[in-house]
Amino acid sequence: MTTYTAINLVKRPSSGPISSELFEVVQKDMPNVAPGEFLVKQNHMSLDPAMFGWMSPDTNSYIPPVALGDVMRSSGIGEVVESNHPDFNVGDRVMGMMGWQEYFLSNGQGLNKADAPLPDETILSIFALPGLTATQGYFNVGNPKKGETIIVTGAAGSVGSIVGQLAKADGLHVIGVVGNEEKANWIVNELGFDSAINYKSAGLESQLEKLAPNGIDLFFENTAGPIQSLIVERMNAHGRVMVCGLIADYSKEVPSPGPSWVSVLKRRLTVQGFTMPDHFHEVPALLAKLTPYVMAGKIKHRSHILEGLESAIDGLNLFFTGENKGKLIVKL
Amino acid sequence: MTTYTAINLVKRPSSGPISSELFEVVQKDMPNVAPGEFLVKQNHMSLDPAMFGWMSPDTNSYIPPVALGDVMRSSGIGEVVESNHPDFNVGDRVMGMMGWQEYFLSNGQGLNKADAPLPDETILSIFALPGLTATQGYFNVGNPKKGETIIVTGAAGSVGSIVGQLAKADGLHVIGVVGNEEKANWIVNELGFDSAINYKSAGLESQLEKLAPNGIDLFFENTAGPIQSLIVERMNAHGRVMVCGLIADYSKEVPSPGPSWVSVLKRRLTVQGFTMPDHFHEVPALLAKLTPYVMAGKIKHRSHILEGLESAIDGLNLFFTGENKGKLIVKL
Repeated sequence: MTTYTAINLVKRPSSGPISSELFEVVQKDMPNVAPGEFLVKQNHMSLDPAMFGWMSPDTNSYIPPVALGDVMRSSGIGEVVESNHPDFNVGDRVMGMMGWQEYFLSNGQGLNKADAPLPDETILSIFALPGLTATQGYFNVGNPKKGETIIVTGAAGSVGSIVGQLAKADGLHVIGVVGNEEKANWIVNELGFDSAINYKSAGLESQLEKLAPNGIDLFFENTAGPIQSLIVERMNAHGRVMVCGLIADYSKEVPSPGPSWVSVLKRRLTVQGFTMPDHFHEVPALLAKLTPYVMAGKIKHRSHILEGLESAIDGLNLFFTGENKGKLIVKL
Repeated sequence: MTTYTAINLVKRPSSGPISSELFEVVQKDMPNVAPGEFLVKQNHMSLDPAMFGWMSPDTNSYIPPVALGDVMRSSGIGEVVESNHPDFNVGDRVMGMMGWQEYFLSNGQGLNKADAPLPDETILSIFALPGLTATQGYFNVGNPKKGETIIVTGAAGSVGSIVGQLAKADGLHVIGVVGNEEKANWIVNELGFDSAINYKSAGLESQLEKLAPNGIDLFFENTAGPIQSLIVERMNAHGRVMVCGLIADYSKEVPSPGPSWVSVLKRRLTVQGFTMPDHFHEVPALLAKLTPYVMAGKIKHRSHILEGLESAIDGLNLFFTGENKGKLIVKL
């Protein structure tokens, strides 16, 4: 093989779905591997909602956007196929931000070995961005206490499903918000959530009242949408809101307004936004917190596998439609 | 004298200004002072925005509402005129929640002696609710750092004016938002704020850009209104919002929505509501923090005196119009 395929970002998204016009599929020459470098063949790439932020032009965002013309940013897992680096050998499995491409040339910086005897999908679903994000938000922002009630939006998503399972393992009362009945069944019957609400169903206010009779102490927000304000209206004094994602707003020209601050004041809420790049230095501590739950079999996951590099483009729209079943992963 | 005047709350406010129909002015018989009790002649009462919360029917509020038919709740300062209590003597000056009435019968609970050799107005303006609220919010919620930029809405108000002066004394860059030019001049020329914005003027966005060229780190919110979202849009990463009051929303049937949580997420903001009843046990510590600033002459104030008990009713509307000049105090 003398060339490989990569996908560059060439235009920034505005409102509406992600279209193929934003990207350019290119063939690149296989690189020479200089001393201190190694070449990775990527096997699985992760699709994450954070990617909408990386494509956006907003310079106030938490991580510089992908430059136009550069390969699209993403995390993935692969195998070293050629090495002139003392610490990485052919056959090593590695993970990191390798982008939308079949091969990745590295000097080792930012890549880690993935030694755990687990499938690629499990590593990308639990021990990568989703699990780290869930762990940081739930423990360090939310400060949860046994017996409290937590509501998680995007509850069947990669982050939300882990948050709910951590909370359930900790003895909280856990309500998940999802977009269809299949997901509702999955989080209740497979993951052990106490209850589920389909945000597309009628009577959300009375459903919340019934499912959270003692009010809501913690709100882990992944989605935005009209249920946001209804949840805030049912929060208890000193409630905490972990703002992790707002997927319903990412495809809008103007994001929706947030809940009135009258509730924030009367209920003395703390609403806190957080993103993982602020906490990459805490990854070892986060993994130390998360791993015992995983080892105890408390954290289940499921993957939605897309086939082939170019499937990533349209795959991003599954975040908007919610039609994915499980963590979105592209198999190369 | 065999009777005294009191004002009872008989109806809850809805939208629009406060009208006299909400209240009933009554004559009460002078009480007998039993053993363990004392009688206070109230001299000055404080009017505070928190009173709108106390009148409201919302049971989720931070303090039970005033029951219909009960005397309207307020804080004030007065003199003991008759005593059968071992710890309070005739002539003692006392302060506390005495309500809208000329005389107050007490067993001592909730009243404190006001020994400081300062006028009633100064005590009610600085060492009562306004100063305690400013101190709690600025230090304990805001966690301010020298060199940061803070913006304060309601900056000429009783709480905002103290917050801005504390921040200025601490070496922050301080911007105040007010509703007229007289207040703008006062906070800049008398209180030492770095700059002022009249929220009724044009080009708020470009004014904010010019006055906060390095962005905003702290936002002390007293008012709500359209400038709220513009401020949030200029906040720096890890900014803190202290939600203390939302006066513009109190007279509305439906409060305005808040800023989009997209900014909360991208900038990793913390938006925190707080109210003083949660912190009454911390009053000694708060006074210990505030007093050195006052003793060093760093905290100026001005009072807007209304004459006579019944002036309190229409006086509340000055919070909505912003026509008051200084802390609202009713002289009895």
